[in-house]
Amino acid sequence: MIGIVGGTGDFGQGLAERLRRIGEEVVLGSRTPRDEFVANRDCAKDSDIVFLSVPPGGLAEMCAGLATDLEGKIVVSVASPVVFRDGKAAAEPGELSLAELGAKAAPGARMVAGFHTVSAKALARVDEPLDEDVLLCGDDEDAKGIVADLAERLVEGRAVDAGRLEVARWLEPLTAVLLNVNRRYKVSSGVRVTGLP
Amino acid sequence: MIGIVGGTGDFGQGLAERLRRIGEEVVLGSRTPRDEFVANRDCAKDSDIVFLSVPPGGLAEMCAGLATDLEGKIVVSVASPVVFRDGKAAAEPGELSLAELGAKAAPGARMVAGFHTVSAKALARVDEPLDEDVLLCGDDEDAKGIVADLAERLVEGRAVDAGRLEVARWLEPLTAVLLNVNRRYKVSSGVRVTGLP
Repeated sequence: MIGIVGGTGDFGQGLAERLRRIGEEVVLGSRTPRDEFVANRDCAKDSDIVFLSVPPGGLAEMCAGLATDLEGKIVVSVASPVVFRDGKAAAEPGELSLAELGAKAAPGARMVAGFHTVSAKALARVDEPLDEDVLLCGDDEDAKGIVADLAERLVEGRAVDAGRLEVARWLEPLTAVLLNVNRRYKVSSGVRVTGLP
Repeated sequence: MIGIVGGTGDFGQGLAERLRRIGEEVVLGSRTPRDEFVANRDCAKDSDIVFLSVPPGGLAEMCAGLATDLEGKIVVSVASPVVFRDGKAAAEPGELSLAELGAKAAPGARMVAGFHTVSAKALARVDEPLDEDVLLCGDDEDAKGIVADLAERLVEGRAVDAGRLEVARWLEPLTAVLLNVNRRYKVSSGVRVTGLP
């Protein structure tokens, strides 16, 4: 079972539908359970892999609140420290990445950071293939491998291992770059890494 | 004439040879002029476009020292705030990007930031095409357009406009991500932006 905590946005909705289409069972969590949404705590408890699709400011707190439920679970942090100034995307990264803050708040979670370059809007257009790679980082190699296998079933490209969890510090802000590309070209851009074997 | 200030490294050497192969005249600058290297000041003075291929810690100081010579010139900052810890690439970005610090130090320069995702090693293998895009940002649209035209003659991919100079804050650290990918896969990776028109 794959859980999406904070599954009400474009990213969570698109991801859920795409996961269902590749045959995965999905449970969506929300702070206000209703209709198809269960409580975030139940979403975390019932899942083997938990995507954290929550605003950057709420990620560490969310992890702290769910720390017991996330124990031993593979947790995927997709958040970026993006803010908007005068309608333009910017990033306000801290010293640590959001993924590292989440890992500190939920030390039993097997944290993987990734999907920062996958546009929520592109994800939500579930009938269009995702012509891009997924970049992943994390310190738990097994967890990262499992997320990589899943990612490669979701995108046309490949899952690229960008190393240890710390690398998320420099990967997360890339979302702000792509959002500026999107603004300029009126697109939903992604990334492919070239030069790989 | 295209100048490469600090042209003694892999990046500068590879860039110079590739520029020559597409018919551009190139002048290489160094702090210690000798053989093919002129003084950085002469390199800047004699060029229309000046690539700053200097270590991140020295970029702002270099710009301050060459401020008069860079007046009105198109200046390309390719530097990233990369450091190595235990042999692993990391980034230590400040509040401003290196390109913005350079622009503040040489306010007459028409600053463009880019090429951060182009591997110095790949660049130095001058017989191999560069299968990748070049991401550019800058506030001077004309300068950025001229650098874009040049970039598209150097790589197989395209020049991607990532917006204003500020965006370099989130683009520059990407070099550290790619260096970690390189370490993992033993390659010289680059990036292509997908989803563009």
